[in-house]
This record gives sequence, C-alpha cells and structure tokens, in this order.
Amino acid sequence: MSLLKTPKGTRDFTPKQTAIREGVFKVIIDCFKRHGAETIDTPVFELKETLMGKYGEDSKLIYDLQDQGGELLSLRYDLTVPFARYIAMNKISSMKRYHIAKVYRRDNPAMTRGRYREFYQCDFDIAGPADPMITDAECIKIVYEILSDLKLGNFVIKVNHRLLLDGLFEVCGVPQEKFRAVCSSVDKLDKTFWKDVREEMINVKGLDGQTADKIGKYVQQSGAMDLADKLMKDEVLMKCKAAKEGVEGMKLLLNFCDIFGVLDKVRFDMSLARGLDYYTGVIYEAVLEGAELKKSSDKNQEQVGVGSVAGGGRYDELVGMFAPKGTKVPCVGVSIGIERIFSIMEARVEEKNEAIRTVETEVLVASAQANMLEERLKLCNELWGSGIKAEFFYKRDPKILDQYQHAEKSQIPFLAVIGDKELKEKSVTLRNTKTREEISVPRANIASTIKTRLKAIEE
Amino acid sequence: MSLLKTPKGTRDFTPKQTAIREGVFKVIIDCFKRHGAETIDTPVFELKETLMGKYGEDSKLIYDLQDQGGELLSLRYDLTVPFARYIAMNKISSMKRYHIAKVYRRDNPAMTRGRYREFYQCDFDIAGPADPMITDAECIKIVYEILSDLKLGNFVIKVNHRLLLDGLFEVCGVPQEKFRAVCSSVDKLDKTFWKDVREEMINVKGLDGQTADKIGKYVQQSGAMDLADKLMKDEVLMKCKAAKEGVEGMKLLLNFCDIFGVLDKVRFDMSLARGLDYYTGVIYEAVLEGAELKKSSDKNQEQVGVGSVAGGGRYDELVGMFAPKGTKVPCVGVSIGIERIFSIMEARVEEKNEAIRTVETEVLVASAQANMLEERLKLCNELWGSGIKAEFFYKRDPKILDQYQHAEKSQIPFLAVIGDKELKEKSVTLRNTKTREEISVPRANIASTIKTRLKAIEE
Repeated sequence: MSLLKTPKGTRDFTPKQTAIREGVFKVIIDCFKRHGAETIDTPVFELKETLMGKYGEDSKLIYDLQDQGGELLSLRYDLTVPFARYIAMNKISSMKRYHIAKVYRRDNPAMTRGRYREFYQCDFDIAGPADPMITDAECIKIVYEILSDLKLGNFVIKVNHRLLLDGLFEVCGVPQEKFRAVCSSVDKLDKTFWKDVREEMINVKGLDGQTADKIGKYVQQSGAMDLADKLMKDEVLMKCKAAKEGVEGMKLLLNFCDIFGVLDKVRFDMSLARGLDYYTGVIYEAVLEGAELKKSSDKNQEQVGVGSVAGGGRYDELVGMFAPKGTKVPCVGVSIGIERIFSIMEARVEEKNEAIRTVETEVLVASAQANMLEERLKLCNELWGSGIKAEFFYKRDPKILDQYQHAEKSQIPFLAVIGDKELKEKSVTLRNTKTREEISVPRANIASTIKTRLKAIEE
Repeated sequence: MSLLKTPKGTRDFTPKQTAIREGVFKVIIDCFKRHGAETIDTPVFELKETLMGKYGEDSKLIYDLQDQGGELLSLRYDLTVPFARYIAMNKISSMKRYHIAKVYRRDNPAMTRGRYREFYQCDFDIAGPADPMITDAECIKIVYEILSDLKLGNFVIKVNHRLLLDGLFEVCGVPQEKFRAVCSSVDKLDKTFWKDVREEMINVKGLDGQTADKIGKYVQQSGAMDLADKLMKDEVLMKCKAAKEGVEGMKLLLNFCDIFGVLDKVRFDMSLARGLDYYTGVIYEAVLEGAELKKSSDKNQEQVGVGSVAGGGRYDELVGMFAPKGTKVPCVGVSIGIERIFSIMEARVEEKNEAIRTVETEVLVASAQANMLEERLKLCNELWGSGIKAEFFYKRDPKILDQYQHAEKSQIPFLAVIGDKELKEKSVTLRNTKTREEISVPRANIASTIKTRLKAIEE
C-alpha cells in the first residue's frame, strides 16, 4: 500500500483550481503580449553546472537529480538562468520573451501562505541593447498593469539600484569583499527591525558600529524623486562614481515611470537589496498591501504575510557567463509569483461562493426510455460532428431524473432528449436546463438550433 | 565556462516551435472539451513508492531525484499513475479529466524521430462505473477525431483485449506465470518477424516449439468484426472463460466504433499487447501510415519510423492499488504523444515556408525625428491603456527606416508615427505596413481608429 500524498511542499490542482489559475494566467499573458513578447520553453532540468554559481547562498535549495549514469542534472530554480543559457546558446542578440513554467526550490514550505517547493513563475524579460532605463521602466509598468488588472487591492512597487547600494557601502567604509554579505543583511529590513540588522552587521558580518550606523542612516530612507534629489545633494555620496551613477539612473527611471503613469505605486526604497547574485542595476519588488511582512525580532517566529508577489531587475552579466566569448547581452526582467495571487483569487471565489464551471459541455444527450443507448450514441456522434460539446450517460438505461440533475449540477445549458416518439417523428426534444422549457426540433436541424440558442444565451 | 547545452534527450522550444505546438494543443484540447472533460494538474515529481511496481520492466527508465534528506522522489513517468493516485487520494468515484503535461523517461533518445527524454503527453481518462465498452469506444473515437483534425494523413487504430491474450495463452498451454513475459514477446511483432519472436519465446521465455506455433497462428491475425466472428466459432478458444469474455467484448466495442463512425480506421490486431503492466481490458494504439515500424531481425539496428502516436486502454485495478481500502474505480484512457505529431507539423511548416507569427503586436509606435523618446513612450502608454498591443524602439533616436523594416519583418500591421508636426496638430500619422498608405488621425481617435482598421484586416 502506497502512502497517499503528494511530495512535501507540492500539491495537486483540482479542476476548479485549474480553472481559477487559467484565469490568472490569461491576464498575465495578455499583458505580456500587449508588450510584444513571444514565448519559449526550456527543459524542467538543466545541467547542474548551468545552475552553479548563479544563486549565491540560495544554491543549497536546488533539487539535484540522482546520478543514474550520464550527466549531472538539477531541476531549474528559476526561469532567468535557463533564459540566459538559451540566449547564449542560440547567439541571440536581442529578444523579448515571456515564459510561464514551474520552478523548484527545496525551501521550507509554508503552503497556507503560498510558499511551495514546486511553483509557477511568470517571467517577462528583455535581452539586448537598450538606452538607459527604458526597458527597466517597461518591466515596472508590466508589474503595475498585471497587479491592477488582477484587482488584488493596493500595492507598492519598491525600487532600488545595486550600484547605489554598492556606492553607499563604499562611502560608509565597508570593505569591498563584504558588499554582498552586508547587502543580504540590508535586505532583511523588510521583515526585521534596524536594531537587529545592525546587530547582525556587527556580530556576524564584522562591521564596526560607526560603519553600521552610517549605512543605517541611508537604507532607512524611502521616497520618490524627492529622495533622488536629496541624494544628488549628498556631496560625500556623489563623490563615489557608482553611487552617482545609481542615483542618476533612479532619476531617469522615475521620470519614465511618471510618463507611464505608474509613479503613484512606485517607492524608491534604499533598503531593497534582493537576494540573487546576478543583479547588476535597477532592482524592484512588488508587495500587496496587507501582505507586507510584519517586522519581528524573533528569528524563529514564522513570518506573517508573504512578501513580494513580483520581483526582478537588471542582470547585464549573466548571459556573458554562458557565452563562449563572454559576449555581453544586457538583460532586464520581471517574475510574477503566481501562488500567492492564486491563493487570494481562490479565497475570493470561496467567499463569494462563486460557481466556477470546470467543463464546457453544451448538451447532455438523454433519454427517458430503456434500450436507447445506441440511439443516444448516434445522436451524440452527430453533435460532436457539428462541433458541439456533448455528453451522455455511460449506462445502458440511466434514469431521466439523474440526467436532469446532472445537467443542472454541471450547468449544462441543454438536454437533447430522444425516445420512440422522437425517433418515429425524426425529431429531438430540446430541453433548456434552467427554464425547463421543452421544444421539438426536427432531427436534421438539431445542431443548428442548439448553436443558435447557445449564442442567444451568451448574449 | 559552462557547457552550453540542454541535457541529453531534451530540447528548447523556440518561439516559432512554441507557436506550432500551441496550435496542436488547441486541436487536442478542443476535442477533450467537446467530450466533456475537465482538467487537473499534479506535481512533476511523485513519491518514489507511488511509481514503484506500476510499469514492469520499464521501471528502470524512471528518473530519481537525489536523496537530499527527506522524501525519496521520482519524476513522473506518465500521467496515468498520478491520475490514479489523485482519484484514490481524493476518494473520487467518477471523473472525466484531461491532463497535458511533460513526462520523463531515461530512454535511449532518438530525437530526429521524436523520441525524447522529456516529452509531452496529452491524456484523456474516464474513471468510474460505466456499462461495458461505452467509454472504451469513446477513447477510440477521441483518437480518431484528433488524428483526423490534425490532418496527419492516413492512420490505423489497432485494438486488442488483454483478456483475449491471456485466454489464448492459456489455451495454447503457456503457464500462467509466463503470461506477461510471453505478452512482451508478442508485442514485438510490430517491429520484428514472427520467426524472431518465435525464437525468443523458445530460447528466452522457455516455451516449447508447439506452444509457440499455436500462439503464432493466433497473434498473426487481424481484421475487424469478421475476426471476432471467426474467433467465436473457435470451440477450443471459447471454452476458456477469459478468451470468450475478450472476444465478446471486442464484438461490442466494434459495434460502438461502428456507431461512432470510426470503424474504417480500427483494426482488431491480435498481436497488439502493449508494454505497461496495469492494463486489464481493451488496449489500443494508433499508428500513422508511413510511420509504421519497419520489421527487422537485427536487434541492434535502429528502428525506422516511430510506432504509435497514441495509445491506451482499460486499467480497472490501478486506483485500487492506491485506495486505502482497495476500493476499485474502473478506468479507461488514452494518451496522445505529441512529439512525433509536432515534428510532422514543424516539417510541414518548413516545407511550405509558412511565416508563423510569434508575437501579436498590432502597432509600432515610431518617429522619424530625434528627441522623441518621451513622446513615443506617452503614445505607447495611451495605446496600452486602450488594450492595443504596441511596441516602440528601445533607443533614444532610432532611424525611421529601421522602424519600418522591423514592422515589416515582424508583420506588425500598423505604425503610429509622431513628430513635431503631429504634436502641434494633435494628430498621429497611421501607416499601414503592407500598403504603406499613410493617414492623419486626430490623437484623440487613434486607439479607436486602429481597432476599427485591425478588425477590417481580420475580416
């Protein structure tokens, strides 16, 4: 006897859940297509070495396949690295693509809050040369459109720049080799208090208190163009080339965000750092209101909320890590995390007690009489031949009441009923499931009559 | 430097390939929905024990995940076993579902002939009580509809019955414990000669020559109702309960196939055995004409052709293997193998040199002047807001010729061109990419004008 479960951190999708999910995908794909993207597909696993050295500390969460003789393989951890591998392998110089597929992370699952080990990512990326901040702003625009179209309530898109972070670390006196480590401390500011982050910087990352305090002054700031303008006046910071480039970039980005009409949801947040190693420029992360992480000093306490529902940034060096001659292809992209969004949509359907149809059947071919199986099959076959979605009961002699009830329960709009009378008259009794109205239709016209009436219902 | 490749036996899908694949999926899903199926999704991996003992000899082809602490997992080998697990786990008594997803087999890849290690299956299954052969016939009908709708040329759907095979083995004197082994020899008759199968039965499976010859007489027969009638008259065979039940079942099935209008492609083929362990009744397999395997005596010679593009059968015991109380849920289903079909479609597109659009962009927002970036962004933003699929060049000052050429190459039907003149006049110059006709449209009407003209093009 097998253990009856799906693997830890994974789940099945029921027909109802699949239908809700398809609705979410449609909104997302419509947006990606509105912005001119094409789509590709890549294998669920990659060579292990393709994934190595791309994810920093998170690499420990990668699923490896067993060595069964042959290549060493790992399940994909995201869709960005496979995309970069695809671009390099096919020597593509520019491409705008979306990819919706499952990715795999051996993380600690928190399934009630939408954190799974197998989950969908919906990625949109632009590879290839572009003048500064144009494509970065389009990615932010896309997040804005999707979160608005899905009607998920208020949200904020936090934006920052990796060069600005590097610059301010330099200015504050952090040694270069500690940049990434300190970065990951800063990134925790969305879920823990400054005093805890400061403590980690000093006790774990080895900074002195003064350096930590300088960093603290910067990274606790957020705003929009006002913050960028303020930083431009910070003479110490502006002496650092990276920081200056970062702030100037942010100004340009915020200007484009303004033109795209999305500035109301964009927050220039200097504590946003993002975990992944491969980002080189602008980074962003969208958080739903009411879903922001509650701050907590207790590391063991499970976080409340889910954090981001979308995130991304610029990664100009990743393709070069794969390209045989190190050819650089600048890239920027965004990934929409569907699971949390899907949980919200599902809860909404439950709350409203909405009836979601999981089949599209238009007609149930039925009979009140015994010995009508072959006649039911014949009629159903005619309907299929006319492109009508039709079903019949898989019993020789089903009860007519069971057939009525099934049509009602499954919201099948019509029943096509036959018996001796109908066969003699060469007719079919067409019954409207909702109104229970019955009409007699000549057998030769049944498909066209059903089509006309279906259209009338739709309108 | 990473090795630039996808894992052995796998491939990427380019935008063009993805578009062709989506077209094939649409035909298949339309058919599944026409027959009233709903869809589910299951994880890409299952507990290893869920898959164990379900696939006979083929179990060695299962991909295992590395033991990284925690559960032992394997990639799914097909969609049937996960479906049976789902049915048992959710205590479902009846369901008609389709599932389109990738499955994984560590087989010897032959990619030019559509044999991959990662490949799509499109499964349709009916679980739950049904009177004999009705649902079995519907599965055959579905294969017929899909292969016809895809216009893949002539095909044959071979049909047989596991009970008939068991019965004739019994009658020919095969000891019960050798049934499965002899079955797998018989199954090779589609790709090798009888004399080789006979030799294997004697030398490898340990039958005597007389028994093998008796089997040979039966399994080299094929036909339709005529063969069933002939077998009914075989007194020796009819004394065996299983064989009699098998032949009677075949008669009923062929009758339903006749009603469904598919008998012209159905061949009752007594050599069809199918490899999988879990089949208990009717089995079937569809082969495209010209794609049938060439017979060969040389075991080492690579087979020509691809064999089946669809297959399935009845598996009444599989759900019971998972159900806590062994509750039986009879099932029947069919799996469409998409890779071979996809190769044919792709070759057809190449042959006809068909231009497949991989993006749906409707308008390219362009300018012939410098310093128009912000104005282009503004106009594009307006179009997006009206639901129009629009793109613009990611350069500050692109050349107008480049923009014209891009629209032509990507088959973008319109260009919306702006410059100082248009800004002053509050207008947009709308250029038809194909005819090169240009009209001036008031800025306020640009979205509605584009929509009207797009509709006109479509019609």
